[in-house]
Parts: sequence; C-alpha cells; structure tokens
Amino acid sequence: MSVKIFDTPEVQDFLAKISGLEASGGNARSKQIVHRLVSDLFRLIDDFDVTEEEYWAAVNLLNALGSQTQFGLLSPGLGFDHFLDMRRDAIDAEAKRTGGTPRTIEGPLYVAGAPEAEGFARMSDEATEGETMWLTGQVRDVDGTPIQGAKVEIWHANDKGGYSFFDPSQSEYNLRRTLYTDSDGRYTARSVIPSGYGVPEGSPTDVVLTSLGRHGRRPAHIHFFISSPGHQHLTTQINLAGDPYTFDDFAFATREELVIPAERIEDADEIQQRGLEGPFSQVIFDIELAPTDESALQTRHARPRAKENAHDLASQLAGTAKV
Amino acid sequence: MSVKIFDTPEVQDFLAKISGLEASGGNARSKQIVHRLVSDLFRLIDDFDVTEEEYWAAVNLLNALGSQTQFGLLSPGLGFDHFLDMRRDAIDAEAKRTGGTPRTIEGPLYVAGAPEAEGFARMSDEATEGETMWLTGQVRDVDGTPIQGAKVEIWHANDKGGYSFFDPSQSEYNLRRTLYTDSDGRYTARSVIPSGYGVPEGSPTDVVLTSLGRHGRRPAHIHFFISSPGHQHLTTQINLAGDPYTFDDFAFATREELVIPAERIEDADEIQQRGLEGPFSQVIFDIELAPTDESALQTRHARPRAKENAHDLASQLAGTAKV
Repeated sequence: MSVKIFDTPEVQDFLAKISGLEASGGNARSKQIVHRLVSDLFRLIDDFDVTEEEYWAAVNLLNALGSQTQFGLLSPGLGFDHFLDMRRDAIDAEAKRTGGTPRTIEGPLYVAGAPEAEGFARMSDEATEGETMWLTGQVRDVDGTPIQGAKVEIWHANDKGGYSFFDPSQSEYNLRRTLYTDSDGRYTARSVIPSGYGVPEGSPTDVVLTSLGRHGRRPAHIHFFISSPGHQHLTTQINLAGDPYTFDDFAFATREELVIPAERIEDADEIQQRGLEGPFSQVIFDIELAPTDESALQTRHARPRAKENAHDLASQLAGTAKV
Repeated sequence: MSVKIFDTPEVQDFLAKISGLEASGGNARSKQIVHRLVSDLFRLIDDFDVTEEEYWAAVNLLNALGSQTQFGLLSPGLGFDHFLDMRRDAIDAEAKRTGGTPRTIEGPLYVAGAPEAEGFARMSDEATEGETMWLTGQVRDVDGTPIQGAKVEIWHANDKGGYSFFDPSQSEYNLRRTLYTDSDGRYTARSVIPSGYGVPEGSPTDVVLTSLGRHGRRPAHIHFFISSPGHQHLTTQINLAGDPYTFDDFAFATREELVIPAERIEDADEIQQRGLEGPFSQVIFDIELAPTDESALQTRHARPRAKENAHDLASQLAGTAKV
C-alpha cells in the first residue's frame, strides 16, 4: 500500500515546526539545514514506502555505528570524505589555485602530539615487526625550490593494519612522527612497511557495505599532513603500488599521482649507508606545496581529532580501539 | 567560495559506485535507498556550501548520539515517529479502515516481558512515591461491544519522569504491566501519576533541539499497546490534561482525542471501594479497536525493543540508562 503525503499542507507545516522555523531562539543556519535534511528524508520515506520495520532497523544501525564511533569510518566508505575533496579541488580551480601534490582524505585515525624531529626520525619502536621501510622525499615549492623547515606529519599502520593509540598492543605514538625538512627540503623516516586493513567484520560499517555488495578493504597507505608558511596546508596519503586494493579502496582515497612503489633494496652498501641491518624497502614521496597568502588555507580545517581536542573526544575515543 | 559539483558526470558516476549499483552482490533495495540518501546529502552539502568544519562536527554529533543510544530519542524530536503515524493514518484511510482510538508514537522505552494479570493489577511497588493513580477503561469494538480478553500493555514514568529498566533506582518492571480485559472489557490499574520529563540537559539530542530554538520536554503521559484477535493492533498513549507541555510535546505525540483529565477524588466511600488509603486521581481511558482480518495488522511492527530481542540489543541498552 503506497501513499504520498509529503506535499500536503499538514506535512509542510509540520516540517516548519520540527525545524524551529517558528521558534525565536536557536541558530538560523541549523534550522535551514535541518529543514532541508528532514524534508529530504521524509520524501525518501514517502517515495520508497519505507516501512516501520525498515525505519527502526535504520535507527538501530545508527545507534550501533555511534556506539562504536564508526561514523568517521562509514563516512569515507560512503564517499563523503572524497566528495569534500572534490569540492575543495573545484573551489581551488575556481580561485586559480592550481599545482602542487593532490590532496586526499585524512581518515579518522590521526593523533595529535607525535614526537618531533628535524630531518630524520625512526618511527617504529624496536618491537615493531615487518619489512623495514625507508621513507624519504623532498618538499618543494611549485617552481621546484626546496622548502626548508616544512612540517611533515606522518602516520601509518603496522604490518597487521593496526594504528597505535587505537591498537593498544602498540607503544604510544608508534609509527607516528612529525618531521621538519632539512636545508635541502628533505625528510627521512625509518619505519616498517604498513599493511592494508579492513573494517571490522560484522561491524555496523561492514553491515552497510555488505548490503551494497561492497567490501571494506583499504590498500597499504601512509598518511601525511604537510604545511609551511606561505603555502597551502596539504592533507594527503600515498598508496603503495601492487596492493590488491591499490585501485579498489573502499574509502575512495586513491589518486593516480599518489600511488608509489616500494623498491626492495638488498645492496650491502645501500644498507650500510643508512645504518640498517639488512634488506629494506625504499619509498620516495616528493611533495609540492601550492603557494597562498590566505592564512585560513595554511592550516588544516578544524575537526575533532584525538588529543587535539581531548575534552570533546573523551567518549569518542573509548569506542575506536578496534578500528 | 561556492561551487556546485553535484550534477557533474564525475559525481554521478561516483554515486553509482558508492551505492554498489555496479556491484553484483548486496541488496537491490539497500542500493537504491543508499543511492538516494547519499545523493540527497551530497546535494545538501553543495547547496549549503557545508564546510569541512561543519561536516565533521556533524559526524562527531552522530557518534555522540549513537554512543548514548539517542537516535530513538532524537527521532521523535525530529518528527519521524509522528510522520510514520501520519503515513499509517493515510494508508488506513485509503484502505477504508476508519474508526477506533487514534494511534500515536511508541517512543523508545517499552520493555517486553512485564508481569501479566487479568482485569486488575497494581503497577507500582510499595517504594514508588507520588499521587495514587486509578487508571481504568473499557476496550470496545467500533460498534460499542466490549471486548473480553483484550491484551492491554501499559508503561509509564514515575513521579520523577524515570522509567524502570532505564532508571536503575526502580525495581524490575515497576510501572509496567500487561492486563487482559475482564468479561465487561475492562482493565484497571493502581499506579502513580507520572511526571513529564525532558531529554537530558547537554545531551546530543538536547544540542540539536537547542540549535533549533526548541525545548526537549514531554508532558506527563502513559503508553499503551492494545491488541485482540480480529482487531488492528493499536500503539497509543494518553497525555494528562493540564500539564504545561500537554500541547507542546517535543516528540509530537499529542492528539486531541488522547488528552485525558486526571480527576482528584477525596470521597471516603470511593477511596474505600477501591481499597485505597487516601485521596487519589482517577484516569479513565476507554479504547475502541478497529476491526481487521489482516493478520499483519493485528500485531505491532517489528522494532528492536528491550528484552524483545535481547541479543541484538545488548549494546544498545547499555547506553540508555540515563534516558
């Protein structure tokens, strides 16, 4: 049995009341956005004849997502993070801000406050298993000039796909470092090759993706924030070439220019030169930063992040340990 | 800076990919609904130039709502429960199923498995404070014939607005009973007059309502499920007359026909006749059930409910104690 009631005066009046359009207090933009959002959802319910069973199953799923702090995980899975990047690219293009290494999504697993170092850092503690990764690159202006003192924040998973802080088996800030580039604009990190990972099996995010016939796998990747005065802040990540999911990332973070090979090096001189004990894999990621005078573009946007705003995040973080 | 990218082929192709329209597995209806939902949200982001800050604040709010199991509380506050009732009323009207006491929203606080009794039950344990309520009524067919053996499930808050199970200070199933009507179609309960209540101050639901210039108060009310073979299952509630929020319920559950006075009775004979110790308030709620042959309409719709489906709800319930 199908009915359509959305366009009736009763429903339209009700929507105004729901959104507080008639109330004197509150925030005008919130009211407008909620009015639009609830209108869209009411129309969806009408158009699809959504049943009470379906509606309450959805409410239950929303509660489950939140109780496991998974909205930040489902969000890239449903393309929102990449959509915001597409919009940001279009905004840049319209403002004629072109050039520089492409941005891509941040993901939900950054933690502020990682140890800082100049030029070089070892990111992995002694207990970290896996293939040694020698990660290095040069930060440059779009005209090729190296940028000294650029801030390069790097975070990535271990060889089991787990992130320190969220994975309690790892030491604090393992595989998380903030580097400042040297006089040649270079940063270098000794770490381990990360593994890709999947959303937890049977989790609410997995339930959504499965219902769409999709998987929840990410390829091996390394996250970066790069900033330097006079340049646009860059949020990006690289995907390691050759991973079965390099071009099939459930989070839609892959961009052609950001797929980087890991080159295995077994040459004794090369090993000795870096002070390593055996063969390793080298990953070279050079970064170009676009210029800007706008200070708002020189820092990353505000977002609740672990330890960046500890007060707001207390409850959020409790639930993320398994991601 | 404003851009609109929704109608570009890139975004449209992306939406198809997100929704799994190209994937072989999954559920066709889920794909269609997610495609519509994400499309609506992308367009909203475009139309309102939603910023990254706003987007991630919303994600954070969704996590907070879920972590406190508040989607079932925000849902009536944003009118979804009443909208589903409006649709159900329209479906009944189209099918010429008219008559009977009006339905209204269930709310999130029903708990299955309450003690059962025939004709009469005391709902409040000895420790329950407040004004004694004598709640009684007759269940009838739409032609006025009393219905014997109708199942009347009643649940309501105590005089502080708290519900047993969710309020750990109350005994199990306090103010929750299942009554079967007597040969005259009557049910009678001795209980206490409930108080209205508000959404927890500062909770995520309160944050949303406040941003809309709205309050989160409910008037004093009493919930009912009523069922009997050959009749439509009825989910309803009564609001007590005279509460400041009787006609200003944040959950939009009030219906004129369901506003009932509580009559104070101090007459010694009336008190003695009921075996009470002093003055009390009487609430009379007669119920008419519409006839139906359709078995699906004779039972309430499936919805995750406390103790009705304990396995699925284990995590959900942990968070609801404060509601």
